[in-house]
Amino acid sequence: MKTNIGFIGLGNLGTPIAQNLIKAGYHLQVYNRTATKIDELDQSAVTKCDSPADAAKDVEFIVTVLSDDKVVREVVTGEDGILKTLPKNAIHISISTILPETSKEMAALHEQSGSCYLASPVFGRPEAAAAKLLWVCTSGKAEIKEAAKPVQESISQGIIDFGEEVGAANVVKITGNFMIQASMEMMAESYTLAEKYGVDRSQISEFFSATLFNAPIFKNYGKIISGKQYEPVGFTSQLGYKDANLAFRLSQQSQTPMPLVNIVHNRLLTALAKGWKDRDWSEAFGRGVSDDAGI
Amino acid sequence: MKTNIGFIGLGNLGTPIAQNLIKAGYHLQVYNRTATKIDELDQSAVTKCDSPADAAKDVEFIVTVLSDDKVVREVVTGEDGILKTLPKNAIHISISTILPETSKEMAALHEQSGSCYLASPVFGRPEAAAAKLLWVCTSGKAEIKEAAKPVQESISQGIIDFGEEVGAANVVKITGNFMIQASMEMMAESYTLAEKYGVDRSQISEFFSATLFNAPIFKNYGKIISGKQYEPVGFTSQLGYKDANLAFRLSQQSQTPMPLVNIVHNRLLTALAKGWKDRDWSEAFGRGVSDDAGI
Amino acid sequence: MKTNIGFIGLGNLGTPIAQNLIKAGYHLQVYNRTATKIDELDQSAVTKCDSPADAAKDVEFIVTVLSDDKVVREVVTGEDGILKTLPKNAIHISISTILPETSKEMAALHEQSGSCYLASPVFGRPEAAAAKLLWVCTSGKAEIKEAAKPVQESISQGIIDFGEEVGAANVVKITGNFMIQASMEMMAESYTLAEKYGVDRSQISEFFSATLFNAPIFKNYGKIISGKQYEPVGFTSQLGYKDANLAFRLSQQSQTPMPLVNIVHNRLLTALAKGWKDRDWSEAFGRGVSDDAGI
Amino acid sequence: MKTNIGFIGLGNLGTPIAQNLIKAGYHLQVYNRTATKIDELDQSAVTKCDSPADAAKDVEFIVTVLSDDKVVREVVTGEDGILKTLPKNAIHISISTILPETSKEMAALHEQSGSCYLASPVFGRPEAAAAKLLWVCTSGKAEIKEAAKPVQESISQGIIDFGEEVGAANVVKITGNFMIQASMEMMAESYTLAEKYGVDRSQISEFFSATLFNAPIFKNYGKIISGKQYEPVGFTSQLGYKDANLAFRLSQQSQTPMPLVNIVHNRLLTALAKGWKDRDWSEAFGRGVSDDAGI
Repeated sequence: MKTNIGFIGLGNLGTPIAQNLIKAGYHLQVYNRTATKIDELDQSAVTKCDSPADAAKDVEFIVTVLSDDKVVREVVTGEDGILKTLPKNAIHISISTILPETSKEMAALHEQSGSCYLASPVFGRPEAAAAKLLWVCTSGKAEIKEAAKPVQESISQGIIDFGEEVGAANVVKITGNFMIQASMEMMAESYTLAEKYGVDRSQISEFFSATLFNAPIFKNYGKIISGKQYEPVGFTSQLGYKDANLAFRLSQQSQTPMPLVNIVHNRLLTALAKGWKDRDWSEAFGRGVSDDAGI
Repeated sequence: MKTNIGFIGLGNLGTPIAQNLIKAGYHLQVYNRTATKIDELDQSAVTKCDSPADAAKDVEFIVTVLSDDKVVREVVTGEDGILKTLPKNAIHISISTILPETSKEMAALHEQSGSCYLASPVFGRPEAAAAKLLWVCTSGKAEIKEAAKPVQESISQGIIDFGEEVGAANVVKITGNFMIQASMEMMAESYTLAEKYGVDRSQISEFFSATLFNAPIFKNYGKIISGKQYEPVGFTSQLGYKDANLAFRLSQQSQTPMPLVNIVHNRLLTALAKGWKDRDWSEAFGRGVSDDAGI
Repeated sequence: MKTNIGFIGLGNLGTPIAQNLIKAGYHLQVYNRTATKIDELDQSAVTKCDSPADAAKDVEFIVTVLSDDKVVREVVTGEDGILKTLPKNAIHISISTILPETSKEMAALHEQSGSCYLASPVFGRPEAAAAKLLWVCTSGKAEIKEAAKPVQESISQGIIDFGEEVGAANVVKITGNFMIQASMEMMAESYTLAEKYGVDRSQISEFFSATLFNAPIFKNYGKIISGKQYEPVGFTSQLGYKDANLAFRLSQQSQTPMPLVNIVHNRLLTALAKGWKDRDWSEAFGRGVSDDAGI
Repeated sequence: MKTNIGFIGLGNLGTPIAQNLIKAGYHLQVYNRTATKIDELDQSAVTKCDSPADAAKDVEFIVTVLSDDKVVREVVTGEDGILKTLPKNAIHISISTILPETSKEMAALHEQSGSCYLASPVFGRPEAAAAKLLWVCTSGKAEIKEAAKPVQESISQGIIDFGEEVGAANVVKITGNFMIQASMEMMAESYTLAEKYGVDRSQISEFFSATLFNAPIFKNYGKIISGKQYEPVGFTSQLGYKDANLAFRLSQQSQTPMPLVNIVHNRLLTALAKGWKDRDWSEAFGRGVSDDAGI
């Protein structure tokens, strides 16, 4: 018989993750604010639920892919939250990008009610998720990690274990998103400078991302930013801003002055102020730098 | 019979380049300010010269690997400069990291005296040069590039042609060094943040440089910065500062506001002010961020 | 008969304000977390209270001078908060430096319980408060402002009315503190530069603050920063950091990119990271800039 | 008999200075690139000259008010430069905003040819110059300063002596212009933030410049920036940028990291990139901040 997994959050990233869980043979009890999105999944492997609490009934695992700390807190502790029904020893695999302190708080609440919480944020865009090419960063108690591994393996190309401190994986995730943003700023400044000197933006981008910066981030965003082709929108500036704000908050809490965080934060704040919140975050950087340079 | 090549500049990078030219069968007429460094080369393939002009006599090519714009200008136009003797149609392959305007000025001077100038800066540390793993960026007239190709091939793993505008390759080189510096700042901030949250610096560095940032810059400098192992010194903060200043000047001349250039420039200026000029440039970033974070 | 005023918050600034209220003939019902501080006031004009609610009983006004938004919220809405007892139509004159949204929230809660709330932050250091030289910025409903005027006049040299929108005065206060911090950064950078060129720090400070920058902020802090005489501590770096964070949050909420806010924020964050939280905020700037300059 | 003074540079600032010298009873030998500007002066007190050398003949003093280091160098050392004719012991009173190193170089050249050089930059806009309200900052040898005092007094409200090191007054002048720019940035950010919260820009500006920031810079530029009334143009963004660049170069030479200099430099560079070079420098700040904030 199939293992039951609760699943909450069919966004751009959540949907392909759910599909991979189904492919791996799990049965999903799905709750989503916009219920119609559930229809996109293989209905033979899915039970529609009316609330987070409903989705968490009688499961071994519940996977959540939510937009921010506030939504996570509501889904867990709300009137119809998953803590109302989550069975003893069931594991909440939390994929959302949230603060480490929120993870700690959630872990404590689960422990109080006899269930388990695991930080499990992922790196990868929706296409990567569909292709099972996500990277899972995880942290929490050893036995919880051991138990959750098959679920995490079924949605990713690899799992990196950042120890027992439950918030650690969240720190890594926020740091990684900051590094992606800093890379976009770096490319936008560089390609704009090159353009001013008559150097072809695409050529310089292709050169760097084939040699010194031969990595996915520089290949993918290098193409977008050098070509000024910011559509289709993969990740909005609004969400990017949220992540820059998380990095800024970590910088504050831990008393780590990070001037580069200020730069990317301001770039995204400027984008919001100019009305670009629904544009791809790469546009906030690419067009932002071009605008300041008068081109 | 062997082709004669003039060669000036046996620094950390120049020496392995000269060695590869010798391996490729060229005969070198070498001038170096510190003449004893010439003794390190295979003497059967080398003629010692007393001045740049001496090195440029009767050659088909002259290769220069010099520290900055001022030295290039002196070596070319000085009383014993190469323009005094460089034969008609001989090609000056200029490997130094200099401003595009200096390249333009040099190209014009060579043209006036019937010789040729080619911008030919390279990417790669001394070890890479020794292993013939440099990347050559080049720009200038098509026929000059065609003629110089065998020489460039003998010292590199690849040549990227940035067109006929002679300063273009210099812009690419300065941009690339800026991107390396920005990457070091990014890593230093990220790893310090992680450290404050109890995440192992090496683990986060290894994770990123095996996945999203799977590129030489992040692997090499990630290891140095996460491990705080800033020795041996590969490239000094003083030289790094010089390059940050070149990037800043390009930003000014082309009216391209580049806030990230300010960050890396200040990081290196702070290092100089603190007396770290002879330390590796990675230390300026790694230790600079740690210091500000009080650890 | 004397008017009764509740008073909460005998900090560095609150104490001289309370003394001026007493001089003006008011009778104070005082609550302070550290009760012994109440002994410093003229006991014939004071009633000691055990809680905020106790202090708010049967008064026409209650004046609060508290450290941050959280404390204000507790004092107002807590179990023994002032809303429990504050009489109908009594006016809460709120002197604390808090977010405009907190003022709005407080105003709404007072209105619900029939009492009145007035934003009334002040500019001036403790000595200025003692000399009745504070400036009061105020905002709220016209009739509340009219009624509170005699109380505000008895503690200040002037009242500036920023309209009916209750949070406006809080915005002005946060903005002003930011401008003071930016001025300190400006002076610290300028005097350090001058020092490096052999120009006397005090002389340049005296020149500017006697001519173009002939204003209290430049006179007072100019003297402190040029003389590197950061003691006695008037306002801690910790509190300065709190204010920089408020400015940053306004910048975020209102989508106003403010790069200078980042600079002062990082300067203070660095001070905290270096363990200087109890040092005067002027030291965070003066010593921070000197440190980076290696002197 | 009247003392003869050479005078070079009838720009916005030079013209009222020349007029005050005439009022004080001096006879001027004037050279200006655009000769027709000389017609605006009282012709009975003026001799028109054809070159700097011509203006420097048989004078006791020569006053220069020029745009930058390059022009100063040409006027002094050019083929028809003043060193060709300046009598022994005659004093060159140099009012231009230039680098301290240029002053040093000029002082040495004058000394070699038996004449004297005095750094004498001034603070004040053209209206202030006309009203004899300039402030003169001066530095150089004691006897030169003593001799030049009557001339400096006839154009200013006060002279501040920064010692014998000739470049000191230039450092003070560059620093002061930086402080004015930083103040404009500070006001632009503050008023834009206030505007977003519905606080009247003029009211907040008037409040601060009547109290904590009760100084000319905040009164004058506060009015311009809060009212967004950037015309008429008093000092162009192009010239402001030149000064920001001087401050940046001092920061580099002296190894004094100055992040606030970066902010004002980028603000002005962005203005140039957007085509605002002939707009008032206050607009670079005021409109620059508004643009980023989307208003």
